[in-house]
Amino acid sequence: MKLGNTDIDQKLAEVTGWTTDDHKWIVRKYRFASFMQGIEFVNKVARLAEAVNHHPMIAIDYKMVTLRLTSWHAGGLTDLDFESAAKFDQAFTDIAAGSGSPD
Amino acid sequence: MKLGNTDIDQKLAEVTGWTTDDHKWIVRKYRFASFMQGIEFVNKVARLAEAVNHHPMIAIDYKMVTLRLTSWHAGGLTDLDFESAAKFDQAFTDIAAGSGSPD
Repeated sequence: MKLGNTDIDQKLAEVTGWTTDDHKWIVRKYRFASFMQGIEFVNKVARLAEAVNHHPMIAIDYKMVTLRLTSWHAGGLTDLDFESAAKFDQAFTDIAAGSGSPD
Repeated sequence: MKLGNTDIDQKLAEVTGWTTDDHKWIVRKYRFASFMQGIEFVNKVARLAEAVNHHPMIAIDYKMVTLRLTSWHAGGLTDLDFESAAKFDQAFTDIAAGSGSPD
């Protein structure tokens, strides 16, 4: 079910580094120590996304990876986007382990 | 060495699917049969890029992967960009093997 703006703002307050684009998308940039570490992260994100058939848009700009999430079927953001964001953040924490930092 | 516009146009005529953005970038979109096949391609691209320390910008939009190449140090396009493009095209051919097609 599509979330309203108030719900979105509340959920955003509970996560780190994510911003909203017009309450239609949530976006986060992750910075890595190396290009290949960013690729490792993208692979983890891909597996997590494929497992629930909910795929972020992914941009890889050298050591920076940007994820953008929305729920096309709902025409906006849903709980699934925030659940996915939490999983991706955990994957980042696991990989970076002190060597990367959010941009 | 930075290539002039005439050289760029000539080299573009020799490759398939690549277009130029203001003679500053070359860009190609690849479409895959599945999201995970696109991820496999990105991994190949990453290894090829890392080997010569020349990294394209990569965007993954579900089954579509977009590569953008330029040579920052030269302030434009160089032979290295076209050499990289040829390698990425070969990786695409190897992976898609009939199941994907350029967009």
